[in-house]
Amino acid sequence: MSGRVEGKRILVTQADRFMGPVIAARLRSEGADVIEDITAPRGIDGGRAVAERHGAVDVLVANLAMPPHPSLIDETTDADWHALFDALVHPLMGLVGTTARFMKAAGRGRIIGMTSAAPLRGIPKNSAYCAARGAQNAYLRAAGLELARNNILVCAIAQNYVANDTYYPPGLTEDERFLERMRAVVPAARIGDPDETASLALFLASEAGFMPGQIIPLAGGWTTTL
Amino acid sequence: MSGRVEGKRILVTQADRFMGPVIAARLRSEGADVIEDITAPRGIDGGRAVAERHGAVDVLVANLAMPPHPSLIDETTDADWHALFDALVHPLMGLVGTTARFMKAAGRGRIIGMTSAAPLRGIPKNSAYCAARGAQNAYLRAAGLELARNNILVCAIAQNYVANDTYYPPGLTEDERFLERMRAVVPAARIGDPDETASLALFLASEAGFMPGQIIPLAGGWTTTL
Amino acid sequence: MSGRVEGKRILVTQADRFMGPVIAARLRSEGADVIEDITAPRGIDGGRAVAERHGAVDVLVANLAMPPHPSLIDETTDADWHALFDALVHPLMGLVGTTARFMKAAGRGRIIGMTSAAPLRGIPKNSAYCAARGAQNAYLRAAGLELARNNILVCAIAQNYVANDTYYPPGLTEDERFLERMRAVVPAARIGDPDETASLALFLASEAGFMPGQIIPLAGGWTTTL
Amino acid sequence: MSGRVEGKRILVTQADRFMGPVIAARLRSEGADVIEDITAPRGIDGGRAVAERHGAVDVLVANLAMPPHPSLIDETTDADWHALFDALVHPLMGLVGTTARFMKAAGRGRIIGMTSAAPLRGIPKNSAYCAARGAQNAYLRAAGLELARNNILVCAIAQNYVANDTYYPPGLTEDERFLERMRAVVPAARIGDPDETASLALFLASEAGFMPGQIIPLAGGWTTTL
Repeated sequence: MSGRVEGKRILVTQADRFMGPVIAARLRSEGADVIEDITAPRGIDGGRAVAERHGAVDVLVANLAMPPHPSLIDETTDADWHALFDALVHPLMGLVGTTARFMKAAGRGRIIGMTSAAPLRGIPKNSAYCAARGAQNAYLRAAGLELARNNILVCAIAQNYVANDTYYPPGLTEDERFLERMRAVVPAARIGDPDETASLALFLASEAGFMPGQIIPLAGGWTTTL
Repeated sequence: MSGRVEGKRILVTQADRFMGPVIAARLRSEGADVIEDITAPRGIDGGRAVAERHGAVDVLVANLAMPPHPSLIDETTDADWHALFDALVHPLMGLVGTTARFMKAAGRGRIIGMTSAAPLRGIPKNSAYCAARGAQNAYLRAAGLELARNNILVCAIAQNYVANDTYYPPGLTEDERFLERMRAVVPAARIGDPDETASLALFLASEAGFMPGQIIPLAGGWTTTL
Repeated sequence: MSGRVEGKRILVTQADRFMGPVIAARLRSEGADVIEDITAPRGIDGGRAVAERHGAVDVLVANLAMPPHPSLIDETTDADWHALFDALVHPLMGLVGTTARFMKAAGRGRIIGMTSAAPLRGIPKNSAYCAARGAQNAYLRAAGLELARNNILVCAIAQNYVANDTYYPPGLTEDERFLERMRAVVPAARIGDPDETASLALFLASEAGFMPGQIIPLAGGWTTTL
Repeated sequence: MSGRVEGKRILVTQADRFMGPVIAARLRSEGADVIEDITAPRGIDGGRAVAERHGAVDVLVANLAMPPHPSLIDETTDADWHALFDALVHPLMGLVGTTARFMKAAGRGRIIGMTSAAPLRGIPKNSAYCAARGAQNAYLRAAGLELARNNILVCAIAQNYVANDTYYPPGLTEDERFLERMRAVVPAARIGDPDETASLALFLASEAGFMPGQIIPLAGGWTTTL
């Protein structure tokens, strides 16, 4: 499979956060020409600017990160709500819409969205985060069905409970009490290794086919919806 | 069952559009004290204002309508995108967050979201609409799980292919070619009757229980996701 | 809604077990002519015999019960496996296939399957039970799509964590330690009341429409898959 | 990724039918020690015998095939029904249960079930087939959650509309009228290439992780349930 991304031009957004670093490193180790954009795009324009800055690519890894501020539903602030939509939802539209235009011109391409499994089950005190991530999943699914006929594969990795510094404070994923709680909640009885995310990203960037618009949960069995 | 909403104070938003009129009529015929707000709320503030205008209610029917403008993903305008989020997503947060506060004080309540089945399958040329409706579904599901412990039941009716003037131009649902296409696409081989939506809304407003956060597809079998 | 089942001929199978008694009582209190069959049908023939014994009905409540014997996947006995399929899966085919024939002749009807939410998420040590209940859900969904064009509505209630003597030993649902565990696992923070199941069954037997093949989870939010 | 199955002992069942040949060939080309069992196992014992014949393996590809005989629900014969369960469902229990025992002793392993996307949406005139495939999916999901704690990854490929001689008569997948129908039904606007199935099987046999019990649709977007 390593040959399949070799020489491919792959844009990873927010390459310094969330799953960006591990995915970029893996794709590069497989021979891809990885462009690491470290902007944190905001709004449609922010996403569009990132896509236009780098022009045509073979693969887009649309990695957008913004940790939630858990809050009760009647205490969620307008600022927190809009911050999530401005960081996760609107730039995705700018990124994907612009990239789709380039890929349609090229006659092929792949788009991998880095989303979350949170909206697949729903998490109390995280309704704003679930709403924003749910918008991402629904958008990418529709995009995948539409762009399938243009030979562009759009999928998403809906992860949860994978160790990373963006969503978990430093040290937390080694904290024994945290791990104990994970073992009770996550069927896999552990948190995920970022390398497992990178493996799935590599698969979607290379060999995957005939699964347009597929949102793939990567959450240790926490959600096993069909 | 008719006794169960009798005398209950029920707020129906955008009561003049989409499924608002038929739901309001049905609930009133069952004896409810129905408040029909005909504002088309925009943004979080718009939703919050509607909820605050009428104060505590037993049931909120969060009916928000905005027909999609179908467009290819790379041709969707920023204006269309934000119009959908401003009409469907942000006011829902204002409505539900404010109403949840009233209902928590009362120790009980029911919230019924009128959403769409579109994001459950994804529809080409409707990625913006799917994103906005997907945000609604994910938000209501998370809200449902959180508010279950406050004795507040939150559910959603995710409908599609039900005759109504908001989404279908006048006359379309009687057009033979349209009906022919529906018979090919919808397993029920027909479009839905708004009374069927009103029946489900009545059930959710009265007897339904133990299904917090449930998003119930009402789309003639077009989506039968579990 | 009470008028809608009044005078209707409704067959409830295994009316003495699982949700049979509460559903039969509720439908009767709403004026239905309820036939309570108390056979525990085994195999296709067993299900067929029950359906043929009572002839044409307006509504079939296909209630089939068999508590699981939890076991590790490599320790599940052939006897336990086949007992589940013989009690839950094969008689459902006999019941529904035969009843569908009667209802097609009548030009209308409703079939409500009493199933389980267990296969919607999967439960360790219950793979056999999940397999059998999963077969039921998949069968009823396909049946629902097929029979929609015959004006026959097929739905299922996929419940879990509802108090009943078939699946919980006497007294368990009042045991404080059990309830404590439920509050940790079930978002609703309680077990379900059989009356809530009966309410949903009444809705499906009377007013529900335009949701052919819908499997409705009734499990306190334990599964909120879309 | 090619190194990851190199030297691994992988059992492919019914290696001469359905997706067996293409998966076996791909895994062998990546260096795996592939055992191709060409028995068509029947019943639990049949599945158990296949697993015991070959003893401990690193990966099991549980490939079980039986084309459906489409029939109306009230015309499905007992023979057709039981043939499907005897070929698809019961041997899976024998195969997986026995293999799980070996893998638990070894402390690791992977099981890949070859199933179908049919039960994820439901197909009229195929209720028996949907029931049997639905049982497979539900069984593998529960198995996946249970065995995750034994370091055994269980996943399934739920495919549909992939060219193969078991389910499509020779020549059909090149028939222009058939392809025309596929383009109308399948969002990808084509049927799938068996190599795409083999790629997913390779991924699951090698790098995939943290997705226990995941049922992955491979059906050109025909089902995009989350």
